[in-house]
Amino acid sequence: MGSESSGSLVGVIGAGTMGAGIAQLAVQAGHTVAVYDAVDGAAARAVKSIGKRLDSLAAKGRIDAEEAQAGKDRLRAIEAPAKLKDAVLVIEAVVEDLGVKQKLFAELEGIVGVDCLLATNTSSLSISAIAGGLREPERLVGMHFFNPAPLMPLVEIIDGLATAPAISAAVAALAQAWGKTTVHCRSTPGFIVNRVARPFYAEALRAYEEQAADFATIDAVLRESGGFKMGPFELMDMIGLDVNLAVSTSVWEATGYDPRYTPAWTQKEHVAAKRLGRKSGRGFYEYGEGVEKAAPRYEDPLGLDRYPAPKLHRSHGKTATSYGDGRILLDIVIDPDGMSTVAIAPAADTPNVELQETIAFLQGLGKQVVVLEDVPGLVVTRTVARLVNEAVDALYRGDADEEDIDTAMKLGVNYPKGPLEWGADLGFGYVCEVLDNLEDVYRDGRYRASPLLRQLAHADRLMDA
Amino acid sequence: MGSESSGSLVGVIGAGTMGAGIAQLAVQAGHTVAVYDAVDGAAARAVKSIGKRLDSLAAKGRIDAEEAQAGKDRLRAIEAPAKLKDAVLVIEAVVEDLGVKQKLFAELEGIVGVDCLLATNTSSLSISAIAGGLREPERLVGMHFFNPAPLMPLVEIIDGLATAPAISAAVAALAQAWGKTTVHCRSTPGFIVNRVARPFYAEALRAYEEQAADFATIDAVLRESGGFKMGPFELMDMIGLDVNLAVSTSVWEATGYDPRYTPAWTQKEHVAAKRLGRKSGRGFYEYGEGVEKAAPRYEDPLGLDRYPAPKLHRSHGKTATSYGDGRILLDIVIDPDGMSTVAIAPAADTPNVELQETIAFLQGLGKQVVVLEDVPGLVVTRTVARLVNEAVDALYRGDADEEDIDTAMKLGVNYPKGPLEWGADLGFGYVCEVLDNLEDVYRDGRYRASPLLRQLAHADRLMDA
Amino acid sequence: MGSESSGSLVGVIGAGTMGAGIAQLAVQAGHTVAVYDAVDGAAARAVKSIGKRLDSLAAKGRIDAEEAQAGKDRLRAIEAPAKLKDAVLVIEAVVEDLGVKQKLFAELEGIVGVDCLLATNTSSLSISAIAGGLREPERLVGMHFFNPAPLMPLVEIIDGLATAPAISAAVAALAQAWGKTTVHCRSTPGFIVNRVARPFYAEALRAYEEQAADFATIDAVLRESGGFKMGPFELMDMIGLDVNLAVSTSVWEATGYDPRYTPAWTQKEHVAAKRLGRKSGRGFYEYGEGVEKAAPRYEDPLGLDRYPAPKLHRSHGKTATSYGDGRILLDIVIDPDGMSTVAIAPAADTPNVELQETIAFLQGLGKQVVVLEDVPGLVVTRTVARLVNEAVDALYRGDADEEDIDTAMKLGVNYPKGPLEWGADLGFGYVCEVLDNLEDVYRDGRYRASPLLRQLAHADRLMDA
Repeated sequence: MGSESSGSLVGVIGAGTMGAGIAQLAVQAGHTVAVYDAVDGAAARAVKSIGKRLDSLAAKGRIDAEEAQAGKDRLRAIEAPAKLKDAVLVIEAVVEDLGVKQKLFAELEGIVGVDCLLATNTSSLSISAIAGGLREPERLVGMHFFNPAPLMPLVEIIDGLATAPAISAAVAALAQAWGKTTVHCRSTPGFIVNRVARPFYAEALRAYEEQAADFATIDAVLRESGGFKMGPFELMDMIGLDVNLAVSTSVWEATGYDPRYTPAWTQKEHVAAKRLGRKSGRGFYEYGEGVEKAAPRYEDPLGLDRYPAPKLHRSHGKTATSYGDGRILLDIVIDPDGMSTVAIAPAADTPNVELQETIAFLQGLGKQVVVLEDVPGLVVTRTVARLVNEAVDALYRGDADEEDIDTAMKLGVNYPKGPLEWGADLGFGYVCEVLDNLEDVYRDGRYRASPLLRQLAHADRLMDA
Repeated sequence: MGSESSGSLVGVIGAGTMGAGIAQLAVQAGHTVAVYDAVDGAAARAVKSIGKRLDSLAAKGRIDAEEAQAGKDRLRAIEAPAKLKDAVLVIEAVVEDLGVKQKLFAELEGIVGVDCLLATNTSSLSISAIAGGLREPERLVGMHFFNPAPLMPLVEIIDGLATAPAISAAVAALAQAWGKTTVHCRSTPGFIVNRVARPFYAEALRAYEEQAADFATIDAVLRESGGFKMGPFELMDMIGLDVNLAVSTSVWEATGYDPRYTPAWTQKEHVAAKRLGRKSGRGFYEYGEGVEKAAPRYEDPLGLDRYPAPKLHRSHGKTATSYGDGRILLDIVIDPDGMSTVAIAPAADTPNVELQETIAFLQGLGKQVVVLEDVPGLVVTRTVARLVNEAVDALYRGDADEEDIDTAMKLGVNYPKGPLEWGADLGFGYVCEVLDNLEDVYRDGRYRASPLLRQLAHADRLMDA
Repeated sequence: MGSESSGSLVGVIGAGTMGAGIAQLAVQAGHTVAVYDAVDGAAARAVKSIGKRLDSLAAKGRIDAEEAQAGKDRLRAIEAPAKLKDAVLVIEAVVEDLGVKQKLFAELEGIVGVDCLLATNTSSLSISAIAGGLREPERLVGMHFFNPAPLMPLVEIIDGLATAPAISAAVAALAQAWGKTTVHCRSTPGFIVNRVARPFYAEALRAYEEQAADFATIDAVLRESGGFKMGPFELMDMIGLDVNLAVSTSVWEATGYDPRYTPAWTQKEHVAAKRLGRKSGRGFYEYGEGVEKAAPRYEDPLGLDRYPAPKLHRSHGKTATSYGDGRILLDIVIDPDGMSTVAIAPAADTPNVELQETIAFLQGLGKQVVVLEDVPGLVVTRTVARLVNEAVDALYRGDADEEDIDTAMKLGVNYPKGPLEWGADLGFGYVCEVLDNLEDVYRDGRYRASPLLRQLAHADRLMDA
């Protein structure tokens, strides 16, 4: 089934934010859509608000007025799943509770026809487990939309142990017909995006806890030197610290408390203190009328006239001090010409005049300069090294293929490069070395290189020899 | 008390599979046996089915008809533990619930005489904890039978913190009089067998997750090259994946989430998907009428005529690729003459012609050849190294003595060699090197050598010098 | 508010041991004190027993009889928190349950005046979390008293994320006016004392589990060679093994199962067996009338006449056997002249005559000699190295400042030196080397050096060069 099935019935179970977004998307793609929610009136409210959104899109000229009206005519709330008898696809987007989902699909199995596709929009539960209670587990597939569903371009299509390849192919084709890009992966903790992205938050939190810099400065470095659209702290403030913590905790628990995913004390403290982000008026930053956002700490312009070319070394995951030669380390800058900020860290034995000259030199190039504490792997270096490692490890375990991993991270969380592409650019040998050096310092398993990254590093070396 | 106490009363509490097996064993050893179960009618049903088994043994000529009749005459169901007043031994085999067991023994303490031995047939609870509620904790001992109890030759005799040596000696003597071999150990997570055996499952699961080979091929390598009676996946299918997972989880939790015992995602997924093994029709393999068992992937016969002697190195826990010299690695073969299969792994830079010649050479020796992906420690090497390490660590902590550890693994799970004997054969220095190399790759604490293994490796080196 | 507020009303919520001790302290400092407890009659009983303690102090001449009477006159039980309307400070010391504490403070917020200080005497909950439900979380502060509160000189003053600096300064000033020494720290698992002290128990337990020596001998070595007032096993027996285990478990869970804090099996077994320490008649030691305390195993006097100066090396965290030169290792002796005991460990290849000569030599100096098994880091060395590391790590994370950390450990748990002072005395380079060597043996993350300790070690090296 693809675009040819336009007009056919799609069922959406669960009328919350995700369910409503998915229903809108299906309606705009030409389907007849029936929305059900166990809470009385919730489906009707969702239908009404989708209608308003369609009208608003028409008012803004994004769609025709007739298209909006036709969409509203194709959309309805239903009072029982039994009305989904003729659906070609039912997408479930109810609360993240295994028992509830299992029960729902068992009920649906008795209602829908043999050709109906069943999809679950979970972000944290195992597809295999949800399918575990079905008579025909092969026809359940995971369909992980990103919020807001009508706008975000990515859908992860997830196979449980039993999912039939033809089923996940059909669901992927349908999502593509709706204008989405799909990636295909196995049912593993966090799937692709929510697993590979964990270090983006975790490394920033650790750098903060180790007093490398404050929230705003770490955000600035990742944004203006690392090339990320948003810094991790402002992003967590937007997502909700509690929501982000729940994802981290879910991946951590599902992997048997893998130290790569241990939630940070700082984040847990903020959530415990009800500092949940924008929605609560305060997260890592404070929000509200007249509250100015905390500013990054750039170095003041030194305005020096003459200075020698600085002795700058890129970070290999060790501290500057550990070299014993007074060196200054440079954090990763994704695009030296395009980026506005450069982060450096001096050693305990760096002469202050050299640090001043280095700052002045970089300022002379038109860059903002951030001086970090001498933490191993600085900010961007440790973050990117771990992102590459997560992506390589997903590949190693056959969770998804190379292209899909990179696509997922670029479209799902807006990364400036796919992590595998980034790893190849930096050199897998270099990334592995950074991780090994970090692991030599921390020795907590968090920076352990995937066996495949080590193999790629060996292969790099073979090609160099 | 030993064989001289023949005819004396033995109480069995709990009429499930283990309880019934133990009751049959005691009856066949000449005891009068009283079976109690909290569920109405369960004890009577167990007594009836034991009677049938005795008749069936007589029908097969394994025991005399009179013996069968006499056994049935000595066996009865009782309606309350109070009838156990004159028992010389009460063995509890109820559900694995600490509270239930504690309450039961507290009740028994008020019923039985001062000389009555109390034994608990737990596989996952601490004997010290079960005894924690008793007035006289020194007379409770663990007695871990293996399933089926009448046939399996091993019984683990387990001391809690308070168990009196005379009590565990008496219980061991009794078990020996019943024809069992006993081993003696402390109350630690998994006792001997269920702790030392964990890597047998865990390493196969990791090798699979790392795409070294499929289930059937990994099973074949451990069976036909490692010398194990059954491969880990077919064995888990027989035991029940859920039962095996529960044991792993229990040891993991009791050790404070030791990464040596972290349950594998693949196993958790299969259990979540209700693929529980033979009993559910599907586990790692599929079962059912007409379903053919998945076959191992042996290399097709190459039929080459001439080939030079191959450049084969045994695995030391590193990947072949890491050496940078194109070498091919060989997995452990327990008995090169007797075993039918040889597993090898080429490096990324192994010339294909060399791989072909190696396969042909080994086929020329009459072996089946399995080509594994180049994962560190291959399949048998990583498994055996970890089994040796677990056994050495049990010794280091004084959990049991050398002979009992080896005996337990040979009789409890049919290992081809006791792990300590195997370690001595391979050389503790070699085993420690394999583990150190694996730990250098994985850095997750899973392959960390016991301090005693390291000492034995140092001692090896001193003897060589 | 300080001593000038003498006579002002202090409220104490919770009339258990800690609450009663705090109330007595506040009364003796001149405050009017109102005690509330949710359990009927509990506050009245506490008031009565505090009165008796004041009378007893007067009888012993420690305070005047009038002072005792005046104290009793200033102290009363109240039936509802509503009576605390005019309090200048309310200290909560109820059960360690987050929900209960949150509810209580929410109620108090509606009762007390705007200037009233709110303090929670928790030892294991996050101050940020307790404050999470308040309208004005900035006025809640942690105030961690040690038991018995009237006698122990230390109070930890703990800031939650929102605590206003002026509030914690005011509470600290008040505690100082009551005669206490205060230290200031952030809301982190275990605060200062309960976090930094964990290795004192954990390393002794591991040394025992590895059969380095028995409880009494390990206690003797830490007392008589390490300079600690009490050994860890006798101290746990006094504290209660269950209480100590609960603290360990709480820190371990709050840190995401950090392997530095994993509770020991031996301790869990003892608690499960109800061997809780002095209070239950048995812990690591047995207590009771006529029971003699287990004695340390010192070497018998050898009475040798002549012996060469021994070849003794201090432990660097490796085993003696690992050097391959037959050396004997020496555990840390905090004050070689003042301490009565010396602990040593021979290698597997130490000639017995050399061991005997070494023992005789040390005995000739008037020392008791303990011969330990050759475990890495012996007993005092591993303990002190980890205490230093915990203290440095607290500093690294900005949990408290240098002076407060040392003060806390000297006053809170009677350590012979502050751990940071001790680290400087031993040399941070040496401590880091000990930890690295231990981590190389154990590879479980438990001995991983704080990044700051590594930086201090690099700095040591720079200064030496």
